Amino acid sequence: MKSSVVKKFGGTSVGSIGRIRATALLCAEFLKLNPNEGLVIVASAMSGETNRLLALAKSCVANPALRELDALVATAEQQSCALLAMALCDIGVPAVSLSAAQIGLHTDAHHLEARIESVNPAPLLDYLQRGIVPVVAGFQGISEAGDVTTLGRGGSDITAVALAAALHSTACYIYTDVAGVFSSDPRIVKNARLIKQISHLEMLELASLGAKVLHPRSVEFAYRYDVPLVTLSSFAPESGETWVVKEDKLMEQPIVSGVTSRIDEAKLTILAMPHHTKGLAVLFEKLGNAGILVDMITQSGIENQRATVSCLVADYNSENALKIAQQLVPELGHLGAALDRDVARVSMVGVGMRTSLNVAAQTLAVLSALSITVDTFTSSDIKISCVIPRKYADMAVRALHQRFIEVN
Amino acid sequence: MKSSVVKKFGGTSVGSIGRIRATALLCAEFLKLNPNEGLVIVASAMSGETNRLLALAKSCVANPALRELDALVATAEQQSCALLAMALCDIGVPAVSLSAAQIGLHTDAHHLEARIESVNPAPLLDYLQRGIVPVVAGFQGISEAGDVTTLGRGGSDITAVALAAALHSTACYIYTDVAGVFSSDPRIVKNARLIKQISHLEMLELASLGAKVLHPRSVEFAYRYDVPLVTLSSFAPESGETWVVKEDKLMEQPIVSGVTSRIDEAKLTILAMPHHTKGLAVLFEKLGNAGILVDMITQSGIENQRATVSCLVADYNSENALKIAQQLVPELGHLGAALDRDVARVSMVGVGMRTSLNVAAQTLAVLSALSITVDTFTSSDIKISCVIPRKYADMAVRALHQRFIEVN
Repeated sequence: MKSSVVKKFGGTSVGSIGRIRATALLCAEFLKLNPNEGLVIVASAMSGETNRLLALAKSCVANPALRELDALVATAEQQSCALLAMALCDIGVPAVSLSAAQIGLHTDAHHLEARIESVNPAPLLDYLQRGIVPVVAGFQGISEAGDVTTLGRGGSDITAVALAAALHSTACYIYTDVAGVFSSDPRIVKNARLIKQISHLEMLELASLGAKVLHPRSVEFAYRYDVPLVTLSSFAPESGETWVVKEDKLMEQPIVSGVTSRIDEAKLTILAMPHHTKGLAVLFEKLGNAGILVDMITQSGIENQRATVSCLVADYNSENALKIAQQLVPELGHLGAALDRDVARVSMVGVGMRTSLNVAAQTLAVLSALSITVDTFTSSDIKISCVIPRKYADMAVRALHQRFIEVN
Repeated sequence: MKSSVVKKFGGTSVGSIGRIRATALLCAEFLKLNPNEGLVIVASAMSGETNRLLALAKSCVANPALRELDALVATAEQQSCALLAMALCDIGVPAVSLSAAQIGLHTDAHHLEARIESVNPAPLLDYLQRGIVPVVAGFQGISEAGDVTTLGRGGSDITAVALAAALHSTACYIYTDVAGVFSSDPRIVKNARLIKQISHLEMLELASLGAKVLHPRSVEFAYRYDVPLVTLSSFAPESGETWVVKEDKLMEQPIVSGVTSRIDEAKLTILAMPHHTKGLAVLFEKLGNAGILVDMITQSGIENQRATVSCLVADYNSENALKIAQQLVPELGHLGAALDRDVARVSMVGVGMRTSLNVAAQTLAVLSALSITVDTFTSSDIKISCVIPRKYADMAVRALHQRFIEVN
């Protein structure tokens, strides 16, 4: 079997006819430099097109049938892929656009958020053998019943990783409109560095902490199927790329790879919760049933068999979370609940923490030197998170970045 | 097997969200009145959408790969079908949109003008049995290799007729923005009548003579597979419909069903053509190779083994036809060629002509009374055509309509 790479182009990389032609040139250049490598392309919809179709559906009926919504929006990727394949053929690169149905990318039947069940590599391998570039519609699948499904947020990245896994590709390149993954948000930290290598687990933590380059589901998928992921800019690919690789393949293991902050969460505190696990289980189950995800759960100050329990919830449904916690007072016997929206979560991620002793202490020292009060503090083997007042978020990120990344 | 009808809605019938909802209501009403009838819907693209996609492709590359052009434009029908299925579901009619691939509508591999090879009725029958309305994307098919194809002009009508044939449907309704087929163009003839019944062959002649309601290929298909075709307006279905049926099922056989005119043709005349068949064969072969269709070939005035040959060609490629005819002088030995663009073809179609003796004579008498010179005259068993000066076209149509249709 010929070795291959998968290259996925996001909405902005195919966002106009000009961008589509530029993306075709980028691929032609790659093939010229790598004549023995098979290339499989995955494309998202032209930016804005999916939203246009969703709005069209909403203007037609208030609650569109999910099967039809999927059938409708999946056409957007078929269009961008056909245009990209045309542009490739036009510059002498034989290419064909392919829908999920045409390559046999099978999912479960959960419309809007389908999970990939299997990918048939045979049609793709056949095209590669014949020297033809398959341009596969991202974000979509086909159910056992033959219905069109879509994969939800980050769906095209997931398609790309799934194809790379099925083809045992050398790497899966995710092209976006920014260069790679940075050690912190360059808008906050002037000296943020491009991360050259990072492990899947670190990337997963960074993605779930707000680094928007890669969707957590695609990183998880790449981790599970051991696919090396590369993220880079299609606008300026030479400006750098980040390789997401297996931890044992990292060339070096920095203590801290990235420093991030989130300011879109609120802290929910349960006051004087009777100290037994069942109560917490009931609470989190009720929140989960209401679609409220909780993170960074801490329990502290056990006194008279009662504890203070806090967790972070998304800002936008924090009022709802508070109401649910208060309504459970009769059932669970706590003394009420409180909400603090003036919070930020600052986090550091790095596989080097596993073997480094003093990161937690040094983190607290850095924040203390700035007179920033740490409200909640959690650490796992590769991550430390602190909840602090929201106004100090940027200051904390800069200081931690300087201390743990810029010193090296 | 449950009896069924196929209803096909053209671009204007799904041209806006408002029209899509109106079309859904029309179908719901039909099912309410015909609870035992299975309904299969075929939809065209929202009007303008196919042209928008073609323009997008042309702005991308000058000569798009045909496979990709088909993959691109076929999405337009998938979109209109998904929206129509949503609108049906929303008013309580279970419906699913289906692409050609999903129902197994197989064609040859001639992109842009594919021919239907087979239709698998099983998926449609399965939906009908379950009380679900299939909403099938018109105009598209799938080749043996699994590539998306399109059927060319009138493609959605052809899809509808092919499904009706495969399902042995009671009838295939073609909804457009005008009521049925008229005995003449109402813009020319004030007293033009809606034709209630017409044979496939008459309809075929009328369609190829410029009646734009039904595309000749769909009528031919309906004729071959004995599918009763009904054409009517989705905007005002009560304003009348035309049934296209087998000739032996016509309730009456009028001498003349319709009077039409075409003013988009030019007359090509070959002067003093040596009188042997091979010369004409070469001429028409060369014209055909250049994509020039010829019609109404006549040969007259044989003298010294030379004849005057004339035919009609489309205005827009008549100059090209003239050039080809002139270039053949050395090879064929004629004395040159001439073009007359100041011509109109006025035709009458009717199965009653088969058994009526004097139609030709009466036609010439009507035109003669108006001092209209008939340049060329041809008749077949159900059609008479005259080439006359273009400025008299409307006058001739009105007079012939009055003589042969309004008198009855």
